[in-house]
Amino acid sequence: MKKFTLFTPGPAEVPPRVLKVMSEPIIHHRSQDFREIFFEVREKLKKLFKTKQDVIVFASSGTGAMEAAVVNFFSKGDKALVINGGKFGERWSNICKAYGLEVEEIVVPWGEAVDPEDVRKALEKDGKIKGVFIQACETSTGVEHPVRDVAKVVREKKGDDALFVVDGITGVAVFDINMDGWDIDILLTGSQKALMLPPGLAMISASERAMKFMEKSDLPKFYFSIKKEMKSQKEGETAWTPAISLIKGLRESLRMIIDEEGLENVFERHKRLASILRGMVEGLGLRIYAKRPAAGLTTIEIDNAEEKRKKMRELGAWVAGGQDKLKGKIIRIAHMGYYTEGDMIYVGNVLKYVVQNSGK
Amino acid sequence: MKKFTLFTPGPAEVPPRVLKVMSEPIIHHRSQDFREIFFEVREKLKKLFKTKQDVIVFASSGTGAMEAAVVNFFSKGDKALVINGGKFGERWSNICKAYGLEVEEIVVPWGEAVDPEDVRKALEKDGKIKGVFIQACETSTGVEHPVRDVAKVVREKKGDDALFVVDGITGVAVFDINMDGWDIDILLTGSQKALMLPPGLAMISASERAMKFMEKSDLPKFYFSIKKEMKSQKEGETAWTPAISLIKGLRESLRMIIDEEGLENVFERHKRLASILRGMVEGLGLRIYAKRPAAGLTTIEIDNAEEKRKKMRELGAWVAGGQDKLKGKIIRIAHMGYYTEGDMIYVGNVLKYVVQNSGK
Repeated sequence: MKKFTLFTPGPAEVPPRVLKVMSEPIIHHRSQDFREIFFEVREKLKKLFKTKQDVIVFASSGTGAMEAAVVNFFSKGDKALVINGGKFGERWSNICKAYGLEVEEIVVPWGEAVDPEDVRKALEKDGKIKGVFIQACETSTGVEHPVRDVAKVVREKKGDDALFVVDGITGVAVFDINMDGWDIDILLTGSQKALMLPPGLAMISASERAMKFMEKSDLPKFYFSIKKEMKSQKEGETAWTPAISLIKGLRESLRMIIDEEGLENVFERHKRLASILRGMVEGLGLRIYAKRPAAGLTTIEIDNAEEKRKKMRELGAWVAGGQDKLKGKIIRIAHMGYYTEGDMIYVGNVLKYVVQNSGK
Repeated sequence: MKKFTLFTPGPAEVPPRVLKVMSEPIIHHRSQDFREIFFEVREKLKKLFKTKQDVIVFASSGTGAMEAAVVNFFSKGDKALVINGGKFGERWSNICKAYGLEVEEIVVPWGEAVDPEDVRKALEKDGKIKGVFIQACETSTGVEHPVRDVAKVVREKKGDDALFVVDGITGVAVFDINMDGWDIDILLTGSQKALMLPPGLAMISASERAMKFMEKSDLPKFYFSIKKEMKSQKEGETAWTPAISLIKGLRESLRMIIDEEGLENVFERHKRLASILRGMVEGLGLRIYAKRPAAGLTTIEIDNAEEKRKKMRELGAWVAGGQDKLKGKIIRIAHMGYYTEGDMIYVGNVLKYVVQNSGK
């Protein structure tokens, strides 16, 4: 029997009703039928991002939207300040470098959050920085960066001369990220986390300030051209063939999040789930790895992590291990999206069972 | 009641058993469970492309793979010869230009196929051409280009000095395209045509010759980096999070095509379907628009095409209209993938009913 519950930080669990709409017959995308779905999705995505701007949908993984955040707004030789506190911070640097940006990094020790004062110092030291790149949550370590405080620093020091770019892949729909309210320039996310969908969709939105950068950007782009997509998506279509079944699923999950549970209630639930699970973890004498843990996942320091992860998987709780230098040192348990308090009691007790029945 | 059958040239019908596997609970992609699925997909994709090379899967629409075909193998300033006989030929030019290639076009009148001798002349006239770009089937007109003959010309004139790049989005799994046998350098396709899946996946393969071009390519790339994907996909993983549900669906549809019906039988069926439908169309006194019609779709010249398309849609036969300058002048009926002889009798008679009951 292969029964399991996914507690991996992407993909995460997909509700049966979302799976169901994705198994309905496919419709054609240049049609009123599709436009009705897509207009509803667009309206709800604005509420999700807390923005008046368009939220653009790509058929890609979240990394595609990260690339879009670079190639649409910057130019060759532009200076980027990347907050690198893990595998996904690294990815910002790699994308920027692939497109010829000059990268300055604030290297944050894994497991820690960036100090906004370090961002201030970096911006004071180098006046030419055009973009500041961060993760709302660094999924490899489970840390939440102080996005709101960093946003303030960027605006104070740079005004309209730099963009603040936030990877919200494990942040949007997990905890509060207020794009317009906090003056974030570019916010993006992916489908397979708190949006409770399979992977294959990414979403991105850009401020008025970013739109001005877009006019000057000289980096090549085609598939991820936001200008092309904006023109089409305002009309309820997409520039290229959209991932129709996933967009139908997205409408369903946005109805659950925005209309039924309510976004603020979703945030509160994630906090409760994190608190329940972390209480259990600490009760076992284990340490939370992240110094400033995000609400979407719990990272746990544990001996023989790979062995314990495998045992948990055998018992039905599919959790993730550590990546790169954290491999074998931590396990990561996701609780963003389709999870209840009961799920936390389940996964916490599977962890307890494995710890108590382990050789070490 | 909203009953319909899709006869649009992408997306096309998806078999219920494929929809069903895509509605199963999502699994994590860094796991043995996923690797088993993906290795099976990889083996079957080689058979589908008729190649010994790796076939790489992207989470994107087919246009993403077209971009990958440019950015991974060419360099800024390279000369491209594009065979432009419709909307998708145009797209090759647009992608090449977006990345700084110099584009020479063979403009083929819409509705016609390219003459391989014109390719020969173009290659003789300009010795610097590094890539020849074509569609196996130009979906906007329903024309099949003579890919095999053009491949011969390219190799005769250019040897190892140029790549022959084939967009097989409405060709692969529709009619014979023999990548290794015909010495095609780059072949690509998308999920939402004869592969009987929703949109959201693209596949691409490259010859040994193309791999040498890849080493010298200086165009920027990240999400669509074939080098990165090759490294991961050989291990049964993907560089970025894959569209897991669509890949599960792909395994199912490849089992149907490769193992159950057999690829050559699929090709024969498409020919029969085209023949049945075209017989009915001509029996109505209507003309086939494409001078060299591809087996995957039938394009029909018809007065008041938009009105007739809408009436057919109301009756349950969801066909497509013309694009750009063909809007209002043709309808397009797809029969690639999940279609039977009975479906042709159905759609042909809906067309007959609409024609005979139309004001004009």
